[in-house]
Amino acid sequence: CSWVCLLPPKMLRRVLCTMLLMGALPSLAELSQGHISVVLLGATGDLAKKYLWQGLFQLYIDQVSSGHSFTFHGAALTALEPGQKMMFDVLKKLACPPDESPNRCAVLKDQFLKLSQYHQLKTAENYTVLNREIEMLLHQEGLKEAGRIFYFSVPPFAYTEIARHINSSCRPPPGAWLRVVLEKPFGHDLESAQQLAVELTSFFREEEMYRVDHYLGKQAVAHILPFRDQNRQFLDPIWNRHHVERVEIVLKEIVDAKGRTSFYEQYGVIRDVLQNHLTEALMFLTMELPGNLSKAEEVLQCKLQALQSLRGLEKQSVVVGQYQAYASHVQEELQKGKDYVSTTPTFAGVLVHSDSLRWEGVPFLLTSGKALDERVGYVRVLFKNRAYCTQSEALRDAGHSQCKPKQIVFYIGHGALNTPAVLVSRNLFRPIMPKSSWKEVVGQPDLHIFGQPLSDYYVYSPVKERDAYSVLISNIYHGRKDFFITTENLLASWAFWTPLLNSISHQAPRLYPGGVENQHFLDFEMVSGELAFTVAEPVELLNPSGPMPSDYKTIQSKFRQSPLVSAWSEVLISQLASDVEKTASRAVARSGQFHLALSGGSSPVALFQRLARHHYDFPWRHTHLWLVDERCVPLTDPESNFFSLHNHLLQSIRVPYFNVHPMPVHLHQRLCVEEDGGTELYAKEIMALVANASFDLVLLGVGTDGHTASLFPHSENGLEGAQAVVLTESPVKPHQRMSLSLPLINKAQQVFVLVMGKGKHDITMQISRVGCEPRKWPISGVSPSSGQLVWYVDYEALLG
Amino acid sequence: CSWVCLLPPKMLRRVLCTMLLMGALPSLAELSQGHISVVLLGATGDLAKKYLWQGLFQLYIDQVSSGHSFTFHGAALTALEPGQKMMFDVLKKLACPPDESPNRCAVLKDQFLKLSQYHQLKTAENYTVLNREIEMLLHQEGLKEAGRIFYFSVPPFAYTEIARHINSSCRPPPGAWLRVVLEKPFGHDLESAQQLAVELTSFFREEEMYRVDHYLGKQAVAHILPFRDQNRQFLDPIWNRHHVERVEIVLKEIVDAKGRTSFYEQYGVIRDVLQNHLTEALMFLTMELPGNLSKAEEVLQCKLQALQSLRGLEKQSVVVGQYQAYASHVQEELQKGKDYVSTTPTFAGVLVHSDSLRWEGVPFLLTSGKALDERVGYVRVLFKNRAYCTQSEALRDAGHSQCKPKQIVFYIGHGALNTPAVLVSRNLFRPIMPKSSWKEVVGQPDLHIFGQPLSDYYVYSPVKERDAYSVLISNIYHGRKDFFITTENLLASWAFWTPLLNSISHQAPRLYPGGVENQHFLDFEMVSGELAFTVAEPVELLNPSGPMPSDYKTIQSKFRQSPLVSAWSEVLISQLASDVEKTASRAVARSGQFHLALSGGSSPVALFQRLARHHYDFPWRHTHLWLVDERCVPLTDPESNFFSLHNHLLQSIRVPYFNVHPMPVHLHQRLCVEEDGGTELYAKEIMALVANASFDLVLLGVGTDGHTASLFPHSENGLEGAQAVVLTESPVKPHQRMSLSLPLINKAQQVFVLVMGKGKHDITMQISRVGCEPRKWPISGVSPSSGQLVWYVDYEALLG
Repeated sequence: CSWVCLLPPKMLRRVLCTMLLMGALPSLAELSQGHISVVLLGATGDLAKKYLWQGLFQLYIDQVSSGHSFTFHGAALTALEPGQKMMFDVLKKLACPPDESPNRCAVLKDQFLKLSQYHQLKTAENYTVLNREIEMLLHQEGLKEAGRIFYFSVPPFAYTEIARHINSSCRPPPGAWLRVVLEKPFGHDLESAQQLAVELTSFFREEEMYRVDHYLGKQAVAHILPFRDQNRQFLDPIWNRHHVERVEIVLKEIVDAKGRTSFYEQYGVIRDVLQNHLTEALMFLTMELPGNLSKAEEVLQCKLQALQSLRGLEKQSVVVGQYQAYASHVQEELQKGKDYVSTTPTFAGVLVHSDSLRWEGVPFLLTSGKALDERVGYVRVLFKNRAYCTQSEALRDAGHSQCKPKQIVFYIGHGALNTPAVLVSRNLFRPIMPKSSWKEVVGQPDLHIFGQPLSDYYVYSPVKERDAYSVLISNIYHGRKDFFITTENLLASWAFWTPLLNSISHQAPRLYPGGVENQHFLDFEMVSGELAFTVAEPVELLNPSGPMPSDYKTIQSKFRQSPLVSAWSEVLISQLASDVEKTASRAVARSGQFHLALSGGSSPVALFQRLARHHYDFPWRHTHLWLVDERCVPLTDPESNFFSLHNHLLQSIRVPYFNVHPMPVHLHQRLCVEEDGGTELYAKEIMALVANASFDLVLLGVGTDGHTASLFPHSENGLEGAQAVVLTESPVKPHQRMSLSLPLINKAQQVFVLVMGKGKHDITMQISRVGCEPRKWPISGVSPSSGQLVWYVDYEALLG
Repeated sequence: CSWVCLLPPKMLRRVLCTMLLMGALPSLAELSQGHISVVLLGATGDLAKKYLWQGLFQLYIDQVSSGHSFTFHGAALTALEPGQKMMFDVLKKLACPPDESPNRCAVLKDQFLKLSQYHQLKTAENYTVLNREIEMLLHQEGLKEAGRIFYFSVPPFAYTEIARHINSSCRPPPGAWLRVVLEKPFGHDLESAQQLAVELTSFFREEEMYRVDHYLGKQAVAHILPFRDQNRQFLDPIWNRHHVERVEIVLKEIVDAKGRTSFYEQYGVIRDVLQNHLTEALMFLTMELPGNLSKAEEVLQCKLQALQSLRGLEKQSVVVGQYQAYASHVQEELQKGKDYVSTTPTFAGVLVHSDSLRWEGVPFLLTSGKALDERVGYVRVLFKNRAYCTQSEALRDAGHSQCKPKQIVFYIGHGALNTPAVLVSRNLFRPIMPKSSWKEVVGQPDLHIFGQPLSDYYVYSPVKERDAYSVLISNIYHGRKDFFITTENLLASWAFWTPLLNSISHQAPRLYPGGVENQHFLDFEMVSGELAFTVAEPVELLNPSGPMPSDYKTIQSKFRQSPLVSAWSEVLISQLASDVEKTASRAVARSGQFHLALSGGSSPVALFQRLARHHYDFPWRHTHLWLVDERCVPLTDPESNFFSLHNHLLQSIRVPYFNVHPMPVHLHQRLCVEEDGGTELYAKEIMALVANASFDLVLLGVGTDGHTASLFPHSENGLEGAQAVVLTESPVKPHQRMSLSLPLINKAQQVFVLVMGKGKHDITMQISRVGCEPRKWPISGVSPSSGQLVWYVDYEALLG
């Protein structure tokens, strides 16, 4: 190799020498794969010390004979000399992987050190210099440049600055690629993530960015998709809502947040673990399998779809906790006073649902916490028990009965097994595993995993254990973008989590003692689609900071001489929903049917959702749904009241088709033309089906101008007279409306008026004072002649 | 008591003496409760020997101080002297209940024997004599008659004769009641049960008949309703489909049918155990609780409703078995040849669903069999596991974790516990039990019941164990009709079971070895709403009688130059349904929607049901449903094609409201009037939504006259021309129809024609031979211009 080794400069000479010295001698054609420069920014930081250099060394070991040549550039703000020393202190400690021969490894390590160089990267000029050095080295060699990797192991506030420098000074020449690797956090919520994404996008193209979620490099997580692909024949029939009972995605830690509270207090467990790691694992489980797993584009597309089909989270979808000592850790580390109260959760359990056809109704439980009893991570798919075993247990063979639990576990690490593993219950199937990378494990018969002895499972663990960063660095090298988080993916995830984060930001988490003392204290359960801790909070642990808004109960009083129910909006809606159900059940018991007329607008949407998701025993089969008013648009127009009713309620329940009565605003392919007789048609339908045209319940809202239904102030129609259904004009678009008339509404057995939000405070005050003046304030004319009127007004509307 | 004891006749004197001698001396007012005569027909038969006399003795012990006086009349066909001897041999052996003092019992037994008398009841005269004797005895005493109980412990063929005699000769005088007690079998199927019911009803009023199902007297079964009532506070939130995972109702026997095959060969396990005992237990679990349990009328009404809301069973809802030695038992006992093959099941597992709001979707597994591994009966309600336990199992308290199974078991008897019992998992609630009749059981910590140690349950057993007949006889005495089977109840149960019995009457049951050797061989599981044995049938046990109809697979061939799929009807429908789903998925993948036009008539109903119950992944959300034809009746008329579609399909799936397109036959409150423009309206709707008015799939049928859709031979409309939708005239009622036209149908991408049943054989032959002659045979004009036509013809239509 003398010709190469004689060439200047020193470092690059080493590049090629090494390659020729090592194992399989690469041919010149292979050498022509080109050169890769890896720049590690933050080369002397914690992450670099702990994982990244080791990962780069592993990459070098694995790829030294690939035909690519490498150089490694550590970079930091530190000046050259001290930086160099710090970096090489780290490099000297690099470990040889256990599956590598010590001799080969020693030689490779020596070469790796020689191929590595420290740079101070602080000013714009530093970047220009770095770029010039890389270019010069390559030019002098006459080697083709394959690409450059810039690994950002720096705090996120530094991203933009570094990105600008790289973009302006360090881009490789055309034909070679640029890959920038970014470490989380990628923002704090949807808005900040969007902002960061916009900034980065101004410097890098999407395909140049590799956002790291190191969970995607965990061997058990990384194997979820290949496992699903290779075992399609077994999984196809059962990987769906008909067979899966529930899924648990769990990361438990023993450590607490001590020493990290300056970060943790801003983030909390949901941002730290659930929004990224556990969500990624969830996607691998729920996404549809692409035809070809090796096409990163397809994988990413399917993953994005899965993320987008998650059902929105509600406040009730989560339980949060905080270990007791957390407050004092925060007070100490952040110099807060003794009365400082943190609501940052250090424990969370979240119930996630997907609305995809495959997973509808299956509970996915995502759980993580600090200061728990053990360190363990796993993804557990528990199947429904569909078997009945006729022979009694005592007289049965010990064999792998169909009546035993059936589960598939992707064991991420630590815990009782203390190794990454894939476990499949033996009464399910013997999985197909790639023999080169996963080996079957036997033994440890006494070990119990999720209630079953290990012998009840087929157990596989990796042939070579690899830390997540080694796996990821290898995938960066291979350009496998599906191991990283795309901008779309990231924003979709934040879009999913941010509303929940906002809604619980002031919620006091349950305090827990920490460690094994937690006992049953953090156990939680699903109760009608919500999560709740199973044991009540002992008094001595109660948050001393006084009652939270949700502790206020409903107030019962009078408004305009009629009963008033008032509460914070969520409590109000749940009260209203349960009152609607009571009214329905009474009506059905009395007459066999329930005629319910519903208003459009935004307030009822919360009611619809509540009814759809929490009132499973509602007598829908006997309920007729009518519209109080409708906008003159086609029923499938998103502006249509019926469309909203359909989306938020009808889709989720089972009402006979004949019992659904949209307003006929769309006749003869035109909208609300008087001659088409839509109003008469609807009136006739009401007369034909509703006894005495008296609805069992009419739900109304109030506009800021005092309108109700689509009866606006000074309306020519509908405020009085014999017409049951009328066409009216709204001051806002779409102007044309169809509406039940005030006289018809006043024939109802019950009328509930729902008023919510600060914006309604003024009109609420106004109508509390006026008499019956429907021409000025149509709502004031609502006064059922022989029925009952109840006002549901939330605190914001009532109190401002 | 001398004045009473001196009175003749001998027996009645004893009646009163006994009463005055015994325990608490009844006052004269109490005595005036009146006299009860109990007549036991079949007094020397097996049932009487084993249970009934003991039950009557227990009644006497319990009620001797009630104020009623009693006489007991055994009766049979045997002549007086030998009959008397036989009967008193039985009576002498009556046991004293363990909870009774031996002294008191000895005195009571003596009295009971004295109050009992044998009668030969053979001729009409015998009955008249019996009646006269009873009357005379009472008249001479001056005692009021309270009532008469006639207990029919005789074969059912004797019922009518005896009933006639009782009705004509043995009715008590006005003011006293008559109760006739009937033992099963109450018929063999719905028809025979109806016939028997009609006969009995001609002699007795409904309230006079007490049909015994001795399961209703089992203490654990009899306590189901009181348990539900007394524990409403705990059960109300969880006794429903949201919390119950499954229910098992099981009666396992070790004995086989040897010695009883003359009965068993006619009945089999479903008639013997499931139709009555297990169904009754099922009703107690699923019925709505009446407000007041003591009102028998309300209880019976709720029970009947529960029975009527069961979903019809299909052949696939059941697995049946026959123990291997059964055939030889039958051959021996019934003198059958060696080649005699019995299809009588001795084992059955049945999956039952209720369509009630409370239970929809919950699987109820009813299982019974002979020659099994153990004798045991139980009703087990298993709740869903909704908890996540954060602490790892190993580090958890042994306490009653929410993550352990939750179940409530009504243990009927035998088995490991060997006593009737009620068990409630301790992590559910501590049940309220009536202290006077149920006591808590502790101990036996090593005993495991349904996978949990006994210590995981609250366990209660009866304070006094009572056999079922004692309980029932006491309830006859108290007139508690809710412990018996009413005519309505009986017929509803047969109406539920008979279609299944008919459909499996020729099905070969799986043979099983019997006893503990059965191992996993009778285990079964639920697979997409059907039941199937979990292990395949070993070859050596296969029924040697040749293939059964269901073994024939589908035949693929050609018919009228188009592909033909043919099979037995069930297989054909399942093939058609899966082809429809495939077509749907392809269309949705291609265009985002699937336009399906469906025909009316009876054949598609099976398809609708199949789609509703077995095709959970059908892309309904993207499917538009159109009608091929409609009868000119209101859509809610049972004759309407849309109504049938709604009942059999729409109700069970989730199609967006906007995607459902009934034909507008009902406009301006009149039906199919040309000027109302219904056909144009439908045509416009099709043009607006279906690309090129080319449906993705049109499903057609064929009438015996060769009509298809509602296009009849020689129709003036629809066979040709530009009209897409037409009004036509049917030769049968209702005459007026609306139909898609042949030209429109022929624009479709795919047309499937479904032809089923023997009645269609002639027309099938006819159209196989003719060319394209739509005026004679409209179906022959079906020929998609650029689409595909497939014929689905069952063997009956194809082969006759």
